[in-house]
Amino acid sequence: MKAFGPIPADFVADPQQMLLIGGQRVDILADQAGDTPLFLYDSAMLTARAAEWRAAFPPEVQLHYAMKANPFAPLLAHMAFIVDGFDVASGGEMAAALAAGVAAEHISFAGPGKRERELEAAIAAGVTLNVESAGEAERALAISANLGMQAKLAVRVNPGFDLKGSGMKMGGGAKPFGVDAAMVPDLVREILAAGADWRGFHIFAGSQALGAEAIADTQAQTMALAADLASDIGEAPPLVNLGGGLGVPYFSGDSAVDIRLVGARLADQLAARPRILRGSRFAMELGRWLVAEAGIYVTRIVDRKTSHGDIFLVTDGGLHHQLAASGNFGTVIRRNYPIAVAGKFGAEPQEVVSVVGCLCTPLDRLGDQVHLPTADVGDLIVLFQAGAYGASASPAQFLGQGAASEYLV
Amino acid sequence: MKAFGPIPADFVADPQQMLLIGGQRVDILADQAGDTPLFLYDSAMLTARAAEWRAAFPPEVQLHYAMKANPFAPLLAHMAFIVDGFDVASGGEMAAALAAGVAAEHISFAGPGKRERELEAAIAAGVTLNVESAGEAERALAISANLGMQAKLAVRVNPGFDLKGSGMKMGGGAKPFGVDAAMVPDLVREILAAGADWRGFHIFAGSQALGAEAIADTQAQTMALAADLASDIGEAPPLVNLGGGLGVPYFSGDSAVDIRLVGARLADQLAARPRILRGSRFAMELGRWLVAEAGIYVTRIVDRKTSHGDIFLVTDGGLHHQLAASGNFGTVIRRNYPIAVAGKFGAEPQEVVSVVGCLCTPLDRLGDQVHLPTADVGDLIVLFQAGAYGASASPAQFLGQGAASEYLV
Repeated sequence: MKAFGPIPADFVADPQQMLLIGGQRVDILADQAGDTPLFLYDSAMLTARAAEWRAAFPPEVQLHYAMKANPFAPLLAHMAFIVDGFDVASGGEMAAALAAGVAAEHISFAGPGKRERELEAAIAAGVTLNVESAGEAERALAISANLGMQAKLAVRVNPGFDLKGSGMKMGGGAKPFGVDAAMVPDLVREILAAGADWRGFHIFAGSQALGAEAIADTQAQTMALAADLASDIGEAPPLVNLGGGLGVPYFSGDSAVDIRLVGARLADQLAARPRILRGSRFAMELGRWLVAEAGIYVTRIVDRKTSHGDIFLVTDGGLHHQLAASGNFGTVIRRNYPIAVAGKFGAEPQEVVSVVGCLCTPLDRLGDQVHLPTADVGDLIVLFQAGAYGASASPAQFLGQGAASEYLV
Repeated sequence: MKAFGPIPADFVADPQQMLLIGGQRVDILADQAGDTPLFLYDSAMLTARAAEWRAAFPPEVQLHYAMKANPFAPLLAHMAFIVDGFDVASGGEMAAALAAGVAAEHISFAGPGKRERELEAAIAAGVTLNVESAGEAERALAISANLGMQAKLAVRVNPGFDLKGSGMKMGGGAKPFGVDAAMVPDLVREILAAGADWRGFHIFAGSQALGAEAIADTQAQTMALAADLASDIGEAPPLVNLGGGLGVPYFSGDSAVDIRLVGARLADQLAARPRILRGSRFAMELGRWLVAEAGIYVTRIVDRKTSHGDIFLVTDGGLHHQLAASGNFGTVIRRNYPIAVAGKFGAEPQEVVSVVGCLCTPLDRLGDQVHLPTADVGDLIVLFQAGAYGASASPAQFLGQGAASEYLV
């Protein structure tokens, strides 16, 4: 038997033990969809999550949504009402954010490999580019001159520190992201001299961390770095994007970030910030933390079999929709995401089973030797923390399967 | 500096050192495509590969294509002419194989999580189902009775052994694939008693192995297992699908499988096979080995930058098309796939660089500290062994990027 991650506390069942999402039975939603597997996202949980963040963080810090976490169009339209800005990572994402009704002035575009046509589209639309290198800044300025439009340019900084305990380290040493801190002042001076609209700094040290103290320490370092850079430049950055870093608990032993601690520490840091940053605005850029927990992945058991005494529940889903949950994306050792039998939610576990996907590969495992209530062909299995890096971060076409449907409820 | 895998020997450059595929310059093909990144597959190399296999293996063994390796429609249509059968892993793949002109009698369908509608479509079309459990056999027989059509059923066997040195182990112990060997005779008797058309055995012990002796040993075990099962049943299997297993060299130190040795050993095994298998036909099911080497992935450098002394070539491609090459699919430790600068093919290496994709994640690395000729913005980078498990096995929609174009040349 192997443990699985904690099921988010806000999920409940009806009296028949059927899991609910948005107050609706998961089995009925699956029937209405007409097919499994499917992703379900709870819009009320998204709203509550943003409110939870706002209650914890000082009001002068803006909340940005990093839409790479979940680009489902109805979800974007919902997020547009509850956050202050969108961070996009490609021309495709920029178009989707604009289509969701986000104003260009509330969109910033980061990414180490922006194409010329993406730079041009961003400048033409009035989107802020977080430039990732001196070369990219040059190209953006040339396009700006060519279009006769002032470019909005922030500089993404490669900080000399990383976020301790983060699943993805985005700073500390040689990185493809941003401009080494030492080179930033000269670059900002060039941007200012070229007459561009300098929008400030984007400093992202890491993501998916659960330690509140480490996140707060990194924010303090980020603030100090922004102040040092501003002093060198001699001008205050209009905006300092402090990055994200807030993780979610996927695995046994993980627990949620204490965001009130992070928020309180950030309030202190803001109150005590160096004079040069007094006129600056601040933002945090969150993807996973905002949307992961509001989403579930629902898949149906199509076979139940025993091999050499081990029970396998074979589902119609798999790694083609849940690559990270299968242990094949950014993790070295496979561990179990939170999982449940939808129709026996909260019931006592009765047997140890492995839940596998329908793909013909041993990589396609959704739950390895997990302790669950008994389930059989036709029953629904649910994976949690599926609202981020699920549908769009998985190889949907693998083995001819195709994408799962998605619904905002 | 870190080594990278061996570049397939059949690739050559023109006098200007531009890499050729199918006799055509890669830069011109990219220009004709109008955009990068793109996949290019060499049809002549596919044909030559199948011929190489036929020269090595005894003529009574059929060559099947496991289309999960590459389902690109023009490539399927080409493969349909050069192999004897297709193995499919979903209803979607089955439809694609039929659309490519493969006759239903030459298609078999394996996969642990077949839906009812997939079973029904296969039986209605006359495709052979490799049944993966007693439950699936029951469902297939019920559908067959319901349709009034005889089902073609082979039994996928979970062998008690695995393929030593294989990247993916598909046998040996408790597995979601197939029916434990000990349970197979009873199941075949049930299938025969129900009046279905029993097509034999599918025995797949592992894939992506480079050791010829280990593959030959596994084939000997497979043959012995098929004979034991047939003796118990008292009837010869019409076909024994021996599985695949032939790997390709991705990494430094890898070398190609000695398929002549495997073929010679298989010829000996066939000549000496037990009497009960005298009337059986045999097949090998190959995906990766047939198509990987014929494919390249071509991506353009959009930025060249230095961070803390390290050079990064940032491309417009990435893990959204080359998940396995980025080290994020089925491998624990990231190693470099074979890589080259398209326009300096065969030139002496001049600098150590890291080649990264355009995604905003540290996972998106295509070449880590590789020694290459100098390259700059606008130059093309090529990854080899891209013909298998590339486009269809990667999360194309991640970060709003979309699929790469594909061409058979």
